[in-house]
Amino acid sequence: MRLADTLFGRPLASDEQKYQNVGPLTGIPIFGLDALGSAAYGPEAALTVLLPMGAAGLAHIVPITATIILLLAILYFSYRQTIDAYPTGGGAYTVASENLGTSAGLLAGAALLIDFVLVAAVGISAGVGALISAVPALQPYTLALCLAMLALISMVNLRGVRDTGMVFVVPTYLFIACLLGVLGLGVWRAWSAGGYPLPVAAPQPLAAGTAAGGLWLLMRAFANGCTAMTGVEAVSNGVMAFREPRNRSAKATLTIIIAVLVLMLAGIAYVSRAYGIGATHPGRAGYESVLSQITGAIVGKGAVYYVTITSILLVLVFQANTAFAGFPRVCHAIAQNSYLPHAFANRGRRLVYSHGIYALILLTALLLVLFGGVTDHLIPLFAVGAFLAFTLSQAGMAAHWRRTGGRHARKSMWVNGLGASATATALVVVLVSKFIEGAWVVVVLIPAILLTMRAVRSHYALVERETGTEDGLALGDLRPPLVVVPMDEWNRITLKALRFAMSLSTDVIALHVEHSEEDPSFREKWEAWVPSSAGKVPRLPELAVVPSPYRYVITPILEFVLELERRHPDRQIAVVIPNLVERRWYQRFLHNQRGELLSALLLLQGSPRTMIVNVPWHLRE
Amino acid sequence: MRLADTLFGRPLASDEQKYQNVGPLTGIPIFGLDALGSAAYGPEAALTVLLPMGAAGLAHIVPITATIILLLAILYFSYRQTIDAYPTGGGAYTVASENLGTSAGLLAGAALLIDFVLVAAVGISAGVGALISAVPALQPYTLALCLAMLALISMVNLRGVRDTGMVFVVPTYLFIACLLGVLGLGVWRAWSAGGYPLPVAAPQPLAAGTAAGGLWLLMRAFANGCTAMTGVEAVSNGVMAFREPRNRSAKATLTIIIAVLVLMLAGIAYVSRAYGIGATHPGRAGYESVLSQITGAIVGKGAVYYVTITSILLVLVFQANTAFAGFPRVCHAIAQNSYLPHAFANRGRRLVYSHGIYALILLTALLLVLFGGVTDHLIPLFAVGAFLAFTLSQAGMAAHWRRTGGRHARKSMWVNGLGASATATALVVVLVSKFIEGAWVVVVLIPAILLTMRAVRSHYALVERETGTEDGLALGDLRPPLVVVPMDEWNRITLKALRFAMSLSTDVIALHVEHSEEDPSFREKWEAWVPSSAGKVPRLPELAVVPSPYRYVITPILEFVLELERRHPDRQIAVVIPNLVERRWYQRFLHNQRGELLSALLLLQGSPRTMIVNVPWHLRE
Repeated sequence: MRLADTLFGRPLASDEQKYQNVGPLTGIPIFGLDALGSAAYGPEAALTVLLPMGAAGLAHIVPITATIILLLAILYFSYRQTIDAYPTGGGAYTVASENLGTSAGLLAGAALLIDFVLVAAVGISAGVGALISAVPALQPYTLALCLAMLALISMVNLRGVRDTGMVFVVPTYLFIACLLGVLGLGVWRAWSAGGYPLPVAAPQPLAAGTAAGGLWLLMRAFANGCTAMTGVEAVSNGVMAFREPRNRSAKATLTIIIAVLVLMLAGIAYVSRAYGIGATHPGRAGYESVLSQITGAIVGKGAVYYVTITSILLVLVFQANTAFAGFPRVCHAIAQNSYLPHAFANRGRRLVYSHGIYALILLTALLLVLFGGVTDHLIPLFAVGAFLAFTLSQAGMAAHWRRTGGRHARKSMWVNGLGASATATALVVVLVSKFIEGAWVVVVLIPAILLTMRAVRSHYALVERETGTEDGLALGDLRPPLVVVPMDEWNRITLKALRFAMSLSTDVIALHVEHSEEDPSFREKWEAWVPSSAGKVPRLPELAVVPSPYRYVITPILEFVLELERRHPDRQIAVVIPNLVERRWYQRFLHNQRGELLSALLLLQGSPRTMIVNVPWHLRE
Repeated sequence: MRLADTLFGRPLASDEQKYQNVGPLTGIPIFGLDALGSAAYGPEAALTVLLPMGAAGLAHIVPITATIILLLAILYFSYRQTIDAYPTGGGAYTVASENLGTSAGLLAGAALLIDFVLVAAVGISAGVGALISAVPALQPYTLALCLAMLALISMVNLRGVRDTGMVFVVPTYLFIACLLGVLGLGVWRAWSAGGYPLPVAAPQPLAAGTAAGGLWLLMRAFANGCTAMTGVEAVSNGVMAFREPRNRSAKATLTIIIAVLVLMLAGIAYVSRAYGIGATHPGRAGYESVLSQITGAIVGKGAVYYVTITSILLVLVFQANTAFAGFPRVCHAIAQNSYLPHAFANRGRRLVYSHGIYALILLTALLLVLFGGVTDHLIPLFAVGAFLAFTLSQAGMAAHWRRTGGRHARKSMWVNGLGASATATALVVVLVSKFIEGAWVVVVLIPAILLTMRAVRSHYALVERETGTEDGLALGDLRPPLVVVPMDEWNRITLKALRFAMSLSTDVIALHVEHSEEDPSFREKWEAWVPSSAGKVPRLPELAVVPSPYRYVITPILEFVLELERRHPDRQIAVVIPNLVERRWYQRFLHNQRGELLSALLLLQGSPRTMIVNVPWHLRE
């Protein structure tokens, strides 16, 4: 069994695709981890902005959460419609391209790519950060832990969709069960205590209010809370990965994910207000995350607390996995339209888009290394990409209904139009309130990506224009080429090359480069070795000797061939290069690599009429 | 003007060699820096061992130096004879090989190679070390300074022999003039003061004696002092670099180098005893080098002192240059006998053995990086290599005289025999007294190098045996090959390849790999594109379609060709690979590199009957 098979599983045949498809049970871990995991930081991010208001701020969390849930509901209905309309995968890129034009599609694609890379990097580093705040001794190994986690997630994803779902099933459902259970208990206690329950473990005291709430503060709290919505589009991107009937499986998965997320967000908002739990200053002594305070207040800091906290930590790390599900699929869709290298469109040995995964690994590793495994500064960039994609996708769907018409088209158009307006509003809020914090980076990055994509496309178009043809095979002028055989000395290798050249054509030139310091008698020897040929059949090769006062070997050969091209503008030329095949890497040091260098230079500098023939010589050893 | 020309000078033609040859004036800086520079650390190394004896130890420095000078004198006369006997370069490797057999020669060669690499690394780091003890602020940049110095010396040497000599002329003669002047003044003062001169600047007080002198201590002092003799063989190695009459120029150079070195050693020994100057503990506060104390005592710490100290520092750094003169020449000699890769035997654009210089740069940089630019620990390894080479070279010369006979042969044999015995004794002393300090490394390293050299030789012998031939060109059986053209799709690139294949042979197979998910109609299209051919001339290519359920592209082609080889054991096969030439590096990401991969796999796994034909396609852009 080969190492690759052990690590990544045996290769899968193309017709095994259907066995790789998944239902809602495994679909939730694959496509839902990002959305569900955001319950762990969305409310916290909103509460952190409200911190300066003290206890007064807490009152705002319920309306802010209600707005976010409303937005989620709109998105839910919009995306259900997208899944029905695009049963082969309706990512923002596809929907926007088809309905709003290429530019809008590419804009959505670029936004999604940025978003996914950030999800991968921030997810991993947030999870590792949570682990480190639990075990501070691991602090010096932050980056190493991040990269190890990246390697683990990468390996799992390269094994294919099905295996990925299997791996993440347990932590996902553990997280859902624990958090919903704890929150449910909290809500019940709050009700039965008339709205003022007693905490089991006391939460951190609320800071004294130092600022009044204003529109700006509430906007920023809302923008931060919106990070809870990222990841919702993943299911509609990946419809193709679901079992038949595809759209029903996908919609069921989306329903469960959104329902669980809404329950969590509502529960957190209600419980935190009931128990009087606010955020604490991150990075200061006494910091404790909101979810940790809530869990402690409801069940006390016993076994259930630790299981819950552990499951949150795992989901934080594994939400990076959503990027691995989404990024390669977006690359695939864009590459199919030639705006990204075609390699992204091919499926690898396990039927996943391996090159997209490689690119994501590379970019994520780069971000992690650049930021030393601490990516807090990247969090603001997140929501911009996600909401830009949301908006374009919803607007595209609205245009879709308008264009296609049909029975419920009018209603559907309104649903998607509402989604587009809502997410566009949220996008503006996020962009304005986070511009200085880093959202401007996305604004700079997106045009650069768009330019690159257009350059890639125009290169492919050029290649297509120059090489595409529907002409049949022409049969005229099949004259054999002029063949040049560089011979540094007379041995079995060069002799084999010379004889092969003679089997290709009757016009063969043996080319010898003569160093002034060398025995000048190659020509004399040649006359002894090659029988005199006047008028004989087959025609014998002729010898050309060129001097090389500067001891160069390759340049004189190259110049000879270029001169030959000029002298015979109507002929094809084949250069036959004798090649001693080195079976072991260290043998490269023992023989010159002139053959390879000559091939490369002839390909680059020679005319299209010059071909290169490699004649290998294998040592018997 | 190209960058390479600016940095390294224009290329030199082979017949410009004679203008590159040097006389004694430039020969001394090229071949003498190692020997002369050792005056700066040989006596100091001996005195450091005598430190525990206090003032009593100082009495021993004169007899120890006298022994070393005697040894030097013997070596001088021996090497004069070597130069006469080997006017084309009589390095230890050549002399030992020709007179004592291949094993002795390789042993000497390996010893010399080790010695030269150590000279380069230790020279540079000693010089930088001296600079840093003068300007301690540079301490953090030790390694960077070492590597910069290495780059400088490398560049100068790649410009050729003559330019190298020119660069080092000034510091060399400044050093000789300053040090001999200062020592001469000191000797004169000591004489005129009846042996007890008064120092201008007081030297460091001598440490109180804590140990009695014993044979072991004296042996170690002698062994340390012997480092003053390394570098003496460089001239005899490089006779070919001298102007005609070669051996006279070389001998004059050797005479001057040895004479100056002897004067310096004698002067240092006499003056240090007269002024009561001993070594100080290196690495402890108050450390001052012996030469610094001597110069201060004789001329005071004024302008002359600083000029002298600077010239010593420069010579310490530049003695690494001797390695650049020696190492490539030894590699060249060994490579000519096929015990090292042949690349070492070629002269580069400036008529120096560039590959030897590259190897030396690489090994030196490796040592410097490994030891962080502080190579004190390597100093013990030095003398072992040098004395092993001395001994084998002298023993070889003794055997030479015995074999060739002649008028003075008997006398010459005795001179070289005496040299061999003396250096053998010194070798044993050095090896024993420094074995634990690190000399054992050399004892381990040398057999490894010898094994490698023999493996290289036997590989070349194998190649020579398998490929060497004096057969003439056979003319029978020049049947054109079976030609296979992999066609992923029908475009101008594959069409060009197909037509080129048809110009080579009438047996052409177009090979299409079919993915199950792909349009399966390549065969149908083929029938439309390629006119039906029954019995026509020229014979038309046939189509072969192979399926690829695992989406592999290269493997099915490879297997097809291997199967074809089996089915046609009497035919040559040519695989024609269409190749889109990427003129810019980033275009590589836009196109698959299957052509290159297929070529490499066919070369490695195919039979010797399979050739590879590259048909390039250039985009017009």
